[in-house]
Amino acid sequence: MNTTSNTAISLNGHARLPLITGRTRMFGIVADPIYHVKTPEVMNALFCARGVDAVLVPVHVSPEGLGCVLDGLRRTQNFGGFIATVPHKTAMLALCDEASDSAKKVGAVNCVRRDADGRMIGAMFDGIGFVEAIRAGGLRPKGMSVYIAGAGGAAAAIAFALAEAGARHITVANRTIERAAALANRLKHVYPHLSVDNEVDAVDRHDLLVNGTSLGMRANDELPLDVSRLHIRQSVADVVMVPEMTPLLKAASAQGCRLFPGRPMLEAQINLMAGHMGAFD
Amino acid sequence: MNTTSNTAISLNGHARLPLITGRTRMFGIVADPIYHVKTPEVMNALFCARGVDAVLVPVHVSPEGLGCVLDGLRRTQNFGGFIATVPHKTAMLALCDEASDSAKKVGAVNCVRRDADGRMIGAMFDGIGFVEAIRAGGLRPKGMSVYIAGAGGAAAAIAFALAEAGARHITVANRTIERAAALANRLKHVYPHLSVDNEVDAVDRHDLLVNGTSLGMRANDELPLDVSRLHIRQSVADVVMVPEMTPLLKAASAQGCRLFPGRPMLEAQINLMAGHMGAFD
Repeated sequence: MNTTSNTAISLNGHARLPLITGRTRMFGIVADPIYHVKTPEVMNALFCARGVDAVLVPVHVSPEGLGCVLDGLRRTQNFGGFIATVPHKTAMLALCDEASDSAKKVGAVNCVRRDADGRMIGAMFDGIGFVEAIRAGGLRPKGMSVYIAGAGGAAAAIAFALAEAGARHITVANRTIERAAALANRLKHVYPHLSVDNEVDAVDRHDLLVNGTSLGMRANDELPLDVSRLHIRQSVADVVMVPEMTPLLKAASAQGCRLFPGRPMLEAQINLMAGHMGAFD
Repeated sequence: MNTTSNTAISLNGHARLPLITGRTRMFGIVADPIYHVKTPEVMNALFCARGVDAVLVPVHVSPEGLGCVLDGLRRTQNFGGFIATVPHKTAMLALCDEASDSAKKVGAVNCVRRDADGRMIGAMFDGIGFVEAIRAGGLRPKGMSVYIAGAGGAAAAIAFALAEAGARHITVANRTIERAAALANRLKHVYPHLSVDNEVDAVDRHDLLVNGTSLGMRANDELPLDVSRLHIRQSVADVVMVPEMTPLLKAASAQGCRLFPGRPMLEAQINLMAGHMGAFD
């Protein structure tokens, strides 16, 4: 490592940018759409702060192109790994050569390390980041009743991490009831003492309500749950990061709920993901 | 485009760095080895100076992996194109879906635009950049006798551009005589009045001597030509950029020759390449 390639610059007091040279290691975030991702800013600031000669870039790939792009990245020798997000987390599990226990349990991968021989090693940190963020905000998952909108990769990761952290009850609410039931059954299988159901309408009964879908990212999206039934003793979390105040969070704020926006959840897991990808090695 | 993603920063008075967001377009430089490439620094400074929300990153790929990586880049929707360098320029011609006339004439591609549908459009700017750089240094290619070491993509591009600019004689000197003869024949075919030969030893007869090989990049490389026969009325150019003063240029300097290092040649063509890739659109 030479001194030039490690130069870090402070911009507006917070953003720090890497200088990219021929020796810089590459990392990516793979998503579709891509415009909303915040990981490049957060991870590149972390690389600079730590003096790591690496850069993370956005990689926009459709589900149909995912396997082909993954094969190209296997052959890209200065590529260290990537973060996978909507809609690739579930598909990525089968595409990896190895996966961590938590990724297998959740059935999804959100972070992949590329080993020097091109093998892809998947892991899942979504749920851990979520639990860390709500704990940092003062909530105790133990004994909690939780409503999760969605049954995809992010929703599953959060459900498993909350179950692992001692939640008492989890409602998995999803428009496609088969997917909701399947996730509920997988939870029940791993955590036999957990109470689970798929009651979409029972919004008012829970301590914590979580949007685990991408609804709220686009201007015309419908709300992920019935906000008219929210009340002041509830907390509401959203995995969507742009806009920071999603329509769900705005409605929850109007009802007096405690809010947990997506950004701190990303920050809570970014160090874990950088570690898995070997970015600090 | 938002204002944050266009922020440009001046570092040490010359390097300017892009802030990478989810909206940033991606470009690459594809090479093997990769550590020596200077294009990321030069191109990213240009992007920032022009307020373009784009970043160019190093992509390290072996010849065996090239087709696979190219297919992955076809499916990467925010990828705008790449610069190809040693050893991929010749192979890239066949892998592109279309190529410019000068690329076909030279038999190599050094810059590829990715169209929105994933098609790859190749072009060749090596020779043009070389000719612009020596002209900027005060040399007139018209009527000149030139010795070129090498018969690969860079050597061919320079030979064709010098012939186009009016050189009188070109010696193509290469260890594998078949490749040298093949390039000489192709030159003769396109420029029937050009005098060409493959006389490796006739170093002292020429106005300009060019290293068109990668010799000089690694510490133990032999010299690309017999430097004991260089003299004070000659000019010597080197396509190798790291180290800036190659063993060839050092020896030529000791003999009193005029020197043309690789870096200004890169700078002369960087605007042309950015234009071809549509980076300013």
